[in-house]
Amino acid sequence: MSDTRYDIIGIGNAIVDIIGRCDDDFLVKHDAPKGHMRLVDADTIASLYADMGPAIEISGGSAANTLAGVSSFGGTGAFIGKVAEDEFGKIFAHDIRAAGVDFNSKAVNGKDPTSRSLILVTPDGERTMNTYLGISTDFDQGEVDPEAIKAAKIVYLEGYLFDHQDAKAAFRQAVEIAKSAGRKVALSLSDGFCVDRHRADFVELIRDGIDILFANEDEIKSLYQTSDFDEAAQCTLADTDLAALTRSAKGSLVISRGEKIEIPVEPVDEVVDATGAGDLYAAGFLYGVATGKDLATAGRLGSIAAAEVISHMGARPEVKLGELARAKGVLA
Amino acid sequence: MSDTRYDIIGIGNAIVDIIGRCDDDFLVKHDAPKGHMRLVDADTIASLYADMGPAIEISGGSAANTLAGVSSFGGTGAFIGKVAEDEFGKIFAHDIRAAGVDFNSKAVNGKDPTSRSLILVTPDGERTMNTYLGISTDFDQGEVDPEAIKAAKIVYLEGYLFDHQDAKAAFRQAVEIAKSAGRKVALSLSDGFCVDRHRADFVELIRDGIDILFANEDEIKSLYQTSDFDEAAQCTLADTDLAALTRSAKGSLVISRGEKIEIPVEPVDEVVDATGAGDLYAAGFLYGVATGKDLATAGRLGSIAAAEVISHMGARPEVKLGELARAKGVLA
Repeated sequence: MSDTRYDIIGIGNAIVDIIGRCDDDFLVKHDAPKGHMRLVDADTIASLYADMGPAIEISGGSAANTLAGVSSFGGTGAFIGKVAEDEFGKIFAHDIRAAGVDFNSKAVNGKDPTSRSLILVTPDGERTMNTYLGISTDFDQGEVDPEAIKAAKIVYLEGYLFDHQDAKAAFRQAVEIAKSAGRKVALSLSDGFCVDRHRADFVELIRDGIDILFANEDEIKSLYQTSDFDEAAQCTLADTDLAALTRSAKGSLVISRGEKIEIPVEPVDEVVDATGAGDLYAAGFLYGVATGKDLATAGRLGSIAAAEVISHMGARPEVKLGELARAKGVLA
Repeated sequence: MSDTRYDIIGIGNAIVDIIGRCDDDFLVKHDAPKGHMRLVDADTIASLYADMGPAIEISGGSAANTLAGVSSFGGTGAFIGKVAEDEFGKIFAHDIRAAGVDFNSKAVNGKDPTSRSLILVTPDGERTMNTYLGISTDFDQGEVDPEAIKAAKIVYLEGYLFDHQDAKAAFRQAVEIAKSAGRKVALSLSDGFCVDRHRADFVELIRDGIDILFANEDEIKSLYQTSDFDEAAQCTLADTDLAALTRSAKGSLVISRGEKIEIPVEPVDEVVDATGAGDLYAAGFLYGVATGKDLATAGRLGSIAAAEVISHMGARPEVKLGELARAKGVLA
């Protein structure tokens, strides 16, 4: 793969997170499903914002967070996602580039604003997301740059993008380009409710062209409609060659045709904000695979990155993950 | 003062902080005077932003931070400052209201955007601010609501506002309204360079109508053009009845006609980001004075609030300061 200039290229929603704290009653009052991502319209996000406490703004977006993590490990990466020509679009573009990730998507001057997610963090550190997609709903095949896709060892797709029809077509196009160039394709299922909305399409995509699947326990059970994790893991192996299934405090399970590796969770003093745990796990795992590490090491890198990001507010790493992994002896 | 519905009303620049980390070389490269606030134009802030690392956005503004702190202690407050009808204006307005502070200034739809400050935090926790005033330069007497001024026990003025001529006139108007209603007037000198720019005006204002003066060591020495802190403190007493002079790690000195009280610094594990230390000291002190505490207690409340805000990124408190002070036995 000497003709690849990127370890990973990610495709996803370009989002700025608006993060605040609330109690569980607030979630109930606003019908926000705890621990999940729900899509909301402009009116709903406005009334939620008016009612919530003080917040901070930090660039987010699932695959974008993952790419920021890959770069923080010392890997090379690019991100494809749609922003509007507005203040949040400028913030997103600045932060992803400042994180060392190539971002060449042109800002659109249209009627819809840059995507934003109101993230409510409860005292237990769990995050509940309320996303207004705005300009991201315009994501289509025109956004996919074939040369950039071919230039990456692994193309990483964010399941959330399945929530808009044109983006699904763009996904399939990206998979085809990557496959014919001999690249690997990875997918994150993103959210249990998102899986529920697009189950058949996800299964078809995984069977047809996904080499590396990321899912948490909730998502993989939803995909295969079972309440039994081990059964869901078995089903996964029938559909793809390699999967990393995260289980919060129980660590993660990496499964491939011949192997089943239990990865322990990395200890943290306090879960301040769970936002980005899955995204950063994927960052460590993908960085490991792209740079030729064994699966157990890739899983450890995922755990280290996830532990760092949940120890503070926001879904982007605050320290150099490569240095962190070297300090722990996991990278040389 | 039974006809007052606010403990404190603040007048200042309504700013959203864009906070990122950098090393000392970055400050030198960009001619940013370490530990100070400098005013920059639109081009300078754009090139600084393009060059700096990933950032987070948090509502700021010196007097606005102080009011958020007063509210966090359980006090009542209002803030007067100018925002534009844009995304940063919405963020500022939301956060100050969500902090429990009355904010009735109308957003202006003009050519200038809401004020923002690029805050660069070096590894030692010191912050260096690069402020683009935008819409704040339009601040004039029309912003000052006489009824709101009369309704507060103490009017608190932010020295930074002296950087625009019309705001000086608005300041004097606010002082007159407050004085004739029998209210107290407090002033923060804000920054050593700011004092340097407006020394004569500041001295005149302090002699004419300031009841409570806030300054750090650098600022008070600059005001009286001396390198000797004790001499500066003596000069202060000749011009005003009560002053709280903060000295970073050396704690603070509260001086009034008959008293000189050394307030110890509140210990912190690590100075993560010094932004807002002075603003939050003022919050605790003003809350104490407005609610009838003795000066030593008011100073302790200032130290407690300052210690909280420098232990994390951003200049607004992350915990309820009233609860914190009660846990320490400083409030009943």
